[in-house]
Amino acid sequence: MSSMLFSDYSSSTTARFLPFSRSRLRVDGAVFCRRLLGPLHVRPPISVSLRTTLTVHSSSSSSPVISATMGTGTSAKIIDGKAVAKIIRDEITAEVSRMKDAIGIVPGLAVVLVGDRKDSATYVRNKKKACESVGINSFEVRLPEDSSEQEVLNFISGFNEDPSVHGILVQLPLPSHMDEQSILNAVSIEKDVDGFHPLNIGRLAMRGREPLFVPCTPKGCIELLHRSGIVIKGKRAVVIGRSNIVGMPAALLLQREDASISIVHSRTKNPEDITRQADIIISAVGQPNMVRENWIKPGAVIIDVGINPVQDEKSPRGYRLVGDVCYEEACKVASAVTPVPGGVGPMTIAMLLSNTLSSAKRLHNFQ
Amino acid sequence: MSSMLFSDYSSSTTARFLPFSRSRLRVDGAVFCRRLLGPLHVRPPISVSLRTTLTVHSSSSSSPVISATMGTGTSAKIIDGKAVAKIIRDEITAEVSRMKDAIGIVPGLAVVLVGDRKDSATYVRNKKKACESVGINSFEVRLPEDSSEQEVLNFISGFNEDPSVHGILVQLPLPSHMDEQSILNAVSIEKDVDGFHPLNIGRLAMRGREPLFVPCTPKGCIELLHRSGIVIKGKRAVVIGRSNIVGMPAALLLQREDASISIVHSRTKNPEDITRQADIIISAVGQPNMVRENWIKPGAVIIDVGINPVQDEKSPRGYRLVGDVCYEEACKVASAVTPVPGGVGPMTIAMLLSNTLSSAKRLHNFQ
Repeated sequence: MSSMLFSDYSSSTTARFLPFSRSRLRVDGAVFCRRLLGPLHVRPPISVSLRTTLTVHSSSSSSPVISATMGTGTSAKIIDGKAVAKIIRDEITAEVSRMKDAIGIVPGLAVVLVGDRKDSATYVRNKKKACESVGINSFEVRLPEDSSEQEVLNFISGFNEDPSVHGILVQLPLPSHMDEQSILNAVSIEKDVDGFHPLNIGRLAMRGREPLFVPCTPKGCIELLHRSGIVIKGKRAVVIGRSNIVGMPAALLLQREDASISIVHSRTKNPEDITRQADIIISAVGQPNMVRENWIKPGAVIIDVGINPVQDEKSPRGYRLVGDVCYEEACKVASAVTPVPGGVGPMTIAMLLSNTLSSAKRLHNFQ
Repeated sequence: MSSMLFSDYSSSTTARFLPFSRSRLRVDGAVFCRRLLGPLHVRPPISVSLRTTLTVHSSSSSSPVISATMGTGTSAKIIDGKAVAKIIRDEITAEVSRMKDAIGIVPGLAVVLVGDRKDSATYVRNKKKACESVGINSFEVRLPEDSSEQEVLNFISGFNEDPSVHGILVQLPLPSHMDEQSILNAVSIEKDVDGFHPLNIGRLAMRGREPLFVPCTPKGCIELLHRSGIVIKGKRAVVIGRSNIVGMPAALLLQREDASISIVHSRTKNPEDITRQADIIISAVGQPNMVRENWIKPGAVIIDVGINPVQDEKSPRGYRLVGDVCYEEACKVASAVTPVPGGVGPMTIAMLLSNTLSSAKRLHNFQ
């Protein structure tokens, strides 16, 4: 099991699609899956009103964001992350507007970008666009690759002091001559919208404490469960992967909601045996199609965080994106599953906007 | 499942023995256990050299701190917490002496006690004695019950600044008119030897980060495993209880050591099914004899953190102490088990002394 293959290393990802790279490709799982199932094609979620759906998962019957799959041999509902993210962004737009009208304050997100990485520039541009779409102000600093750590720290310090900035993001990765940890630690805990500060993580882990921010991707996973009407309390939940940015905080969040959690990782023997006990699976390891049919308890709910490029010569790009979970197989066994792409991905940026709005509300004491 | 019944609410407990109180007693498990097994009497660990032991657990063959049980129907080794704690205290005594000789610095622990609770006074006295026994200086402030929060904060502030103080403990519980959280938060992170600060817990949860201090009781549990030669890496570990002071940090510590963890708590359905999968069980819930034979996989290792008083009219005190785990049954199934008392209890204070020494070394940059 590897670390995450996310290409946007900060949690606040607009597009985590990674240009295909042979050196990073892991095809074993995908190839095996394809041999069993024929050519893999991600089935686009078909949005149908639940009123007309025949096989609705009982716990999700009130949800407008679950679509039914169609065709033979599949029964899982598709959790439509794009649709949920759209609803949340609309809610944020309304709240930003209400806040502006009431107290004249517009939430602001600052992004610090160092160097000329094209992928990083794309992510920053997407974040900026997302802010604009909901009425959040965005601020951007671009520094050359050979900037000093002190120059970066000076800008962070400025944003920490700036009352029009309510969230600060440092786009990762930073150039290798910089100490990532000391730069991230410089971001004020009150503006750390990524939620990665150890103080936030500690509060997340502790009963009776509240984090100022919850990391965006795991927050998005839980929000998908909530908005799909899936009950968490009392359920067995297995998180695959223990990264600081997804797996570990996702497990802490599930436990806060009274799930009984197990965490599976690269040192786990027979991970499928543990995973097969789960009512809810969150997978975040970056291994294409690792979770197979025999890992999944019939009726389980699957949140697939992985976005993995696998070689596909039929695709004009030469690659396609798959999750950690073998989607076609999951559709046959699970009761609900997120697609890749279009599942967790769109939620991450929505949660970043949500965190920025919450920060502005807290800093200006606006309910 | 209840919260912990520990009577010393800080982790740094010398004696957590609780005078029997009918109102707090939970006898169901104990009564049931006694009906099956006849009168319960905690078997004192019999220290025998492992060279003369016939049935030594393979992973513990190099350990001088595991004793064999004797008698028919029992096979588990007893993990002798008193013996391990003694070894650690001797090591600390030697290190304190070496530090004093080398740089003239003696580690110091300050304890703040507010009010007249007899049990709290006993715990503070025991901590003081423990410090003296290893050569650590102890400082104590006793304030009357009706002191103001500000008075307590002033003393904490003084200890924060005092270079001869390397660890600060606030004895809990505090009088009800005080805000416990704000008082605990006032303790400098660099002197928080209890390790309960959210920043410490966050670092404990995160890969690649190191906490300044690890909470004493869970640290003691892991130390018992280490010193008993029990391998953690790759094992299935179940933690029963998710308290901030024991269960949650114990799970995080086990995961740092590459165990695959599951956490069982009051909302878990069929906790015995999950627990029975564990190679290592840490129980910290305060339910007498809750973990029965059918919860335990043959050969599992059990660390029992619970110290629960149950009514016993034959005892001169009218009560006796039992763990969360039905000891007699565990001895038949497990490969190793901690007794109650004499298991985890003595380790907590040893870890407090260890944390105070580490703090002094760090603050004075002494290796």
